[in-house]
Amino acid sequence: MSNPLSEHEIESKLTDLNDWRFEQNFIRKSFRFTTFRDAMSFLVRVSFEAEQLDHHPEIFNCYNQVEISINTHDVGGKVTEKDFALASAIDACSS
Amino acid sequence: MSNPLSEHEIESKLTDLNDWRFEQNFIRKSFRFTTFRDAMSFLVRVSFEAEQLDHHPEIFNCYNQVEISINTHDVGGKVTEKDFALASAIDACSS
Amino acid sequence: MSNPLSEHEIESKLTDLNDWRFEQNFIRKSFRFTTFRDAMSFLVRVSFEAEQLDHHPEIFNCYNQVEISINTHDVGGKVTEKDFALASAIDACSS
Amino acid sequence: MSNPLSEHEIESKLTDLNDWRFEQNFIRKSFRFTTFRDAMSFLVRVSFEAEQLDHHPEIFNCYNQVEISINTHDVGGKVTEKDFALASAIDACSS
Repeated sequence: MSNPLSEHEIESKLTDLNDWRFEQNFIRKSFRFTTFRDAMSFLVRVSFEAEQLDHHPEIFNCYNQVEISINTHDVGGKVTEKDFALASAIDACSS
Repeated sequence: MSNPLSEHEIESKLTDLNDWRFEQNFIRKSFRFTTFRDAMSFLVRVSFEAEQLDHHPEIFNCYNQVEISINTHDVGGKVTEKDFALASAIDACSS
Repeated sequence: MSNPLSEHEIESKLTDLNDWRFEQNFIRKSFRFTTFRDAMSFLVRVSFEAEQLDHHPEIFNCYNQVEISINTHDVGGKVTEKDFALASAIDACSS
Repeated sequence: MSNPLSEHEIESKLTDLNDWRFEQNFIRKSFRFTTFRDAMSFLVRVSFEAEQLDHHPEIFNCYNQVEISINTHDVGGKVTEKDFALASAIDACSS
């Protein structure tokens, strides 16, 4: 599950997700919430998914904005299937 | 804002909320979520409202179930306008 | 891991924990924090342990007070080894 | 409270805080926790302070690492007294 994916594979898999993009060796999604409170509650919700998969994203938050960036450290910061599993779980949180 | 409301006033005000009931000197609402994770994220979201209003409910959680009970300690555990302000803020979280 | 423990076994195991008691078919601990904020952050921390063990306590919160009660639904609400595993994980959070 | 501070004033005030530094027009602190769970619980705790002060930092998290960066948008991203008030509140959380 941790083999680096080719750029072609990444782009293909991105079409199965909602609004994720491939950027600087990460798959990345930007969220904008109504309030900071909504953003933080969402991050708590996402944290449970990260723990379950034992795969932790880079999270950036400022006020109502959240940016989540995912790649796999174990293969030198490349994108793998594990990253898509987490992204998919995160999409399920925000729906 | 902290005068005890009559039972008639309470019942009248409950009609402005979603699914709250008057029970054992509290206004109370039961929530059922899909998962424990959803329940906890919701409680974090609610906590910000409680802090803003400086009014804290009794919270019960077990797995995907949450029960929130509100009255006003300062008037001996009676229901006041403050309780309805918090209940209304909580309803806004869950929508 | 889910066989009901005898009261003797429960009392013996309670001595390995910090301030838990056996009460109404639960093992139970009461916490008092400085602030509501501390209480909620602690509950978030505890939630990760509950999810990892897939075992969820009954949680009661009011302002800076938290009460956690644990037993095992699958064996009809008796106390089992699973409950002590969760209690021990919770104690590790609060230290 | 929102006047930009001089670099001299910033450096002087930093000595009242624990391990904050002045960098790229932010005051900034890096935290390393034992676990991701500890990091997220800390961020929930910090969020209540940000809401109370109505001043929100830039938060970065990856696994057990947290970086918090603070400046004041209203004065074009300069450091003001408000930033030090939040930093001080955050230090009180982590002690």
